Amino acid sequence: MPVVDLDSSALEAAQLLAERRLPALVVTERNGAPHTILPASQVVRFLVPGYVQEDPTLARVMNESMADHVGDKLGSKRVRDLLPKDRRELPAVNHDDTIIEVAAIMARLRCPLTAVMRDGKLIGVISASRLLELALPRR
Amino acid sequence: MPVVDLDSSALEAAQLLAERRLPALVVTERNGAPHTILPASQVVRFLVPGYVQEDPTLARVMNESMADHVGDKLGSKRVRDLLPKDRRELPAVNHDDTIIEVAAIMARLRCPLTAVMRDGKLIGVISASRLLELALPRR
Repeated sequence: MPVVDLDSSALEAAQLLAERRLPALVVTERNGAPHTILPASQVVRFLVPGYVQEDPTLARVMNESMADHVGDKLGSKRVRDLLPKDRRELPAVNHDDTIIEVAAIMARLRCPLTAVMRDGKLIGVISASRLLELALPRR
Repeated sequence: MPVVDLDSSALEAAQLLAERRLPALVVTERNGAPHTILPASQVVRFLVPGYVQEDPTLARVMNESMADHVGDKLGSKRVRDLLPKDRRELPAVNHDDTIIEVAAIMARLRCPLTAVMRDGKLIGVISASRLLELALPRR
C-alpha cells in the first residue's frame, strides 16, 4: 500500500513514488491516521530551487547533475518537510461504503486518492482511476 | 502514449484511464498540439451529480447503479465536455531538454505530466514519478 508517515524519510518516499510510478502517496500521522497526500509533482517541486521555478531558462545553466542535487536535498529530510504549507484534505471512506459514496467524496475534494478505513484504521487506498475501472461498463 | 484529443469519445478516454490505471491523460487539439490534461479525478467529478458532491450523504440513497449512470453520462460526450472551465496549462518540453529543465517547468506549473515535443509534434509524455525515477540516485 503506497503509504508513508509524516516522519518517514523524504528520500524513501521519493523512491517509492519513482519505483512504483505512483502519482501520489497517502501520508499518515505517526499513529496511522490519514493526514494528506504527497503528489509526485510536489516532490519534483521541492527539488527545484525557487529561482529556477520562476525562470525555467535558468535550468539550462545549472551544471550540477540532478541526481547529486536530489541526494543533497532529500537525504536529511522527512516527509513533513516536503508538504506544502496548505494541507490538502485527504478523503476518507469506510470499507463498506458504496462506489457512488466513494465517487461523491472524491469528486468533492478533487483528490486522486481516497483512504479506506475500518474501525478507525487505514486498510487501503483507492485511486480515481481504480474507481473508474469499477464504475465503467465492461467493453 | 496516454493521449486523446478534444473530440475523442469521453467514454473511451475514461476507459483508457481505467484500464491503464493512469492518473491523467494528455489532451491535444485536433491538429495534435498539446492542449491540457484530463485527470482521472476530473472524470469522477463529471460522473457525480452536483447535489451529491455538495452532500455526499445523498449518495447513500441513490439507488441506480454507478455503471448505468456512467454509460448514460459519458456515452454521447466528447473529451472537451469533461474538461473544467478553467483550462489547466500543460507543460511542454523539447525532446533535447535536460532533466533539470523538465523538472523546472513541471515544478512551476505543479503538473503531474509534461508533453514532450520535437519539431512541433507531440512525441511523448513524462510523468512526475518517471522524472523522479530518472533524478534519484540508485539505491
